[in-house]
Amino acid sequence: MPRVQLQNARLPCPNRLIRPLIRRLQPYVPGEQPKVEGLIKLNTNENPYPPAPSVLRAIRSAADARLRLYPNPTADGLRYKLAKLYGCAPENIIVGNGSDELLEMAVRCFVEPSPCASARTPAGAARCMVQYLTPSYSLYPVLADMHGAIKNAVPLNPDFSLPSPQQLRRGSRWRFDAALTFITTPNAPSGRGYRTAELESLCRAQRGLVVLDEAYAEFADENALALALKYPHVIVSRTFSKAYSLCFLRVGYFIGHPELIAALHKIRDSYNVNGLGQLAAETTLDHLDYYSANFGKIRATRQWLTEQLTQLGFHVVPSQTNFIFVRPPDRTAHQRGGPNKAARTSGSAEDWYYALRERKILVRWFDQPQVRDYLRITIGTPSQARRLVQVVREILRC
Amino acid sequence: MPRVQLQNARLPCPNRLIRPLIRRLQPYVPGEQPKVEGLIKLNTNENPYPPAPSVLRAIRSAADARLRLYPNPTADGLRYKLAKLYGCAPENIIVGNGSDELLEMAVRCFVEPSPCASARTPAGAARCMVQYLTPSYSLYPVLADMHGAIKNAVPLNPDFSLPSPQQLRRGSRWRFDAALTFITTPNAPSGRGYRTAELESLCRAQRGLVVLDEAYAEFADENALALALKYPHVIVSRTFSKAYSLCFLRVGYFIGHPELIAALHKIRDSYNVNGLGQLAAETTLDHLDYYSANFGKIRATRQWLTEQLTQLGFHVVPSQTNFIFVRPPDRTAHQRGGPNKAARTSGSAEDWYYALRERKILVRWFDQPQVRDYLRITIGTPSQARRLVQVVREILRC
Repeated sequence: MPRVQLQNARLPCPNRLIRPLIRRLQPYVPGEQPKVEGLIKLNTNENPYPPAPSVLRAIRSAADARLRLYPNPTADGLRYKLAKLYGCAPENIIVGNGSDELLEMAVRCFVEPSPCASARTPAGAARCMVQYLTPSYSLYPVLADMHGAIKNAVPLNPDFSLPSPQQLRRGSRWRFDAALTFITTPNAPSGRGYRTAELESLCRAQRGLVVLDEAYAEFADENALALALKYPHVIVSRTFSKAYSLCFLRVGYFIGHPELIAALHKIRDSYNVNGLGQLAAETTLDHLDYYSANFGKIRATRQWLTEQLTQLGFHVVPSQTNFIFVRPPDRTAHQRGGPNKAARTSGSAEDWYYALRERKILVRWFDQPQVRDYLRITIGTPSQARRLVQVVREILRC
Repeated sequence: MPRVQLQNARLPCPNRLIRPLIRRLQPYVPGEQPKVEGLIKLNTNENPYPPAPSVLRAIRSAADARLRLYPNPTADGLRYKLAKLYGCAPENIIVGNGSDELLEMAVRCFVEPSPCASARTPAGAARCMVQYLTPSYSLYPVLADMHGAIKNAVPLNPDFSLPSPQQLRRGSRWRFDAALTFITTPNAPSGRGYRTAELESLCRAQRGLVVLDEAYAEFADENALALALKYPHVIVSRTFSKAYSLCFLRVGYFIGHPELIAALHKIRDSYNVNGLGQLAAETTLDHLDYYSANFGKIRATRQWLTEQLTQLGFHVVPSQTNFIFVRPPDRTAHQRGGPNKAARTSGSAEDWYYALRERKILVRWFDQPQVRDYLRITIGTPSQARRLVQVVREILRC
C-alpha cells in the first residue's frame, strides 16, 4: 500500500499543468439556454422567425453521404457570394465558426501578449492592448484576459452614445495607438446606434486595428461596412446568427483589407466552418427579401414595445437592434395609495428579472457597473411582446 | 491631390498591424478538397461509407425553426452519452469544433508563449514547450508556432515505432518535463499502431501534459482511452470525423481529468459546436453497430490492399488506421528487359503522386524529411481499392 501511494504522489497535479493565466481567468458567461415548456425566451437576442423555407429545404437535401467529406476549408462558395453582394473580393472576407471565433482570432493575430518586455513602455503597452468602450460585448475583456493582453475599457457617454475623438482626447484614458479596438455598433447591450460618420472619424483617429462589431447591423438604419473597404485598418464583423436566424449553425464573417484577412486565415482552423452552416448561409443570400420582411416586422414590434413600456414608466434606450435596453420605473413613480402600496411596486432591474422569470419570461440582466439598473429584452414576435406588456402590467399592479 | 495622398500616407499600413509572429508563420496546409467528376479521393482519410441512415434522418427532421436558437453551449446531450459509453463523468469531456479546435486550445491552455523571461532556463523553456514525435500530425508545429511556443520534435524509430522511455532518455533530446506532448496514436501518417502498455510507460515518465491524439483509434486493435481516466496528466483526443463519417459537421472531443477539462472549457468559444453536429454525433452513438460493421469492411480492404501492393513491390507500413503508408518499389526492382526498360519504370513517391493524380486517383504526398519517399493512401471502398491496384499495375507497366 505505501508503495502505491508513493507512485500516485509522483504523478503531476492537474492544476499545476494549467497556465496561471488560465487558472485566474474569469470565463465569459453566455445567456442561459433553458428548455422550459412555454417559456418566452427573450434573453439571447435570437430572431423570433425561422430561416427561409428554402434554407431548411437546402439543409434537408444535403443530409446525405457528403457528410463523410470535409467541408470547403475556406468557405469559398459563401465568400464569393458575399463578395458579390458587397462589391468586394473574396480575399476581403474570412468566414468563422460564428463571429465569436473571429473576434478571438483577431486578438491572437493583432495583439501581443503582455509579458513581453516591451510592455513596460507606453508604446509597448499599446501593442499588447485590447481596447473597448463600456458597456459593450462582455466577451472582449475575456478575450483579452485569455491572451494575456492589457485591457483598456473606456466608458461610453452616460446615454450610451459614442464619445467623439475630441472627447476621448480630453478624457486621456483612450489610446489612439491601441493594437486592437473593438466597437460594438449598434451597441450591445444598450441597443444604441452610431452614425457611420462618427464611426469614421473615430477610425481615422486610430493608429491600430479597429474591429467594428456589427452583429446587429441588419436591424439598424445605417451600417459601416463601407469603412472596412475604405480603410486598411478597419474590419467589420458580421454574423448570420441574429438577423438570419442561424444561431444553431455558427456562421459569422469579417470583411477587411486582404492583408489583414490573409493573416487571420493563417491562424484559422483548417475546417473551421461546418458544411451545413456554409450551405445554409449561401442559401440565405438567395432569399434576402424574406429576411428584409422579418427585419421590418422586428422593427415594428420594437417600436410598439418601446411605446408601451415607455407609457408604463420604463426608460427605453432608443434601439437600432433586435433588443431593447430598459430601466424599470422608479419605485416612487408608481406610488398610488401611499407608502404602503409603494413598497409593493416594482423594484430594481434584478427584481424585475426574477419577477419576469417567475412568469415564464426570460430576459437578460447584467450584474455589472453602468448597466445594473437595466434589463435587456430581445424583440420577439408581436404576441410575445403583447404577453410581455401584459405581464409587466401585472407586476406593476402587485 | 497632394493633400489626399498625404492623408492616405497617414493611414496605418496593414502589414504592420499584424504580429511579427503571425507574419512569419508558415500555416498548416490541409489536403486538397477538389470537386472533380470521377475522382477517387484517397487523400484526406475520409470514411468511404456514409453516416447511418438514422443520423441523416435526424438531421433532416431537425432542419426547422430551432435553427434560429443557439445550440447547447456545452454539448451536454453528447457529453452525457459519451460519459455513459466510457463509464466516466460528463466533467471528463469537452466537445470541440472538430478535434483540431481542441488541440489548438490545449496549446493555449497548458503552454506558456516563449517570450517570457523564464524561457531562458531549461525548466522555463519546458513550460513553453510543445513536444511531439516525427513524423506525426503536421498541425502540431504550426500550433506551437502560432502560440510562440518552443517546438521539440523528436524522431520516431526508423520503422515509425515508438521509442521507449529508456531510448528517449539515451537520446537526450526528449524532454520529460515538456509542458505539452502530442502523441498521434495510431500514428499518422505512418498508420503504425502503438500498444497501450508502451503508451502507458511513456505517460508515466512524463511530468507535463500528454495528449494522446486518437483520431484513428476506431480502426485499431487497441486504444488508450483508459489512460485518460487513470492519469491526471493524460488527455485522449477523439473525433467523429473519420470513423463516424461526420467530417462535414466538425465534432471532436477530449477526455481527461476534470480539472484539465474545466480549464479548457474556460477558453472555449461559448457556442463552439454547431447544433446539427451535436445532434448527428448523439444519434451516431445510438447506432454503433452500423459503424462497427464499416470498421470491419475498412480493415478487410486495408488488408487486401496491403497484400496487393506488397506483391507489386511496395513497402507497406503495417496499418492500424483507415489509410496505409507505402513506399513505391525501387526502380531497380522492376527491371525486366535491361536498363532501357528500367528507366521507364516507377520513380519517386512524388512521381507516383502525380502519375496517380493524372489517372484520377488523389493520394497524399508530404514533401518533408522522413516521409518524402512515401505516399499516404486512404482506404476507400473495395471497388476503389481494385481500381487503385489496376492503375498501379498500369503505371508499373509504363
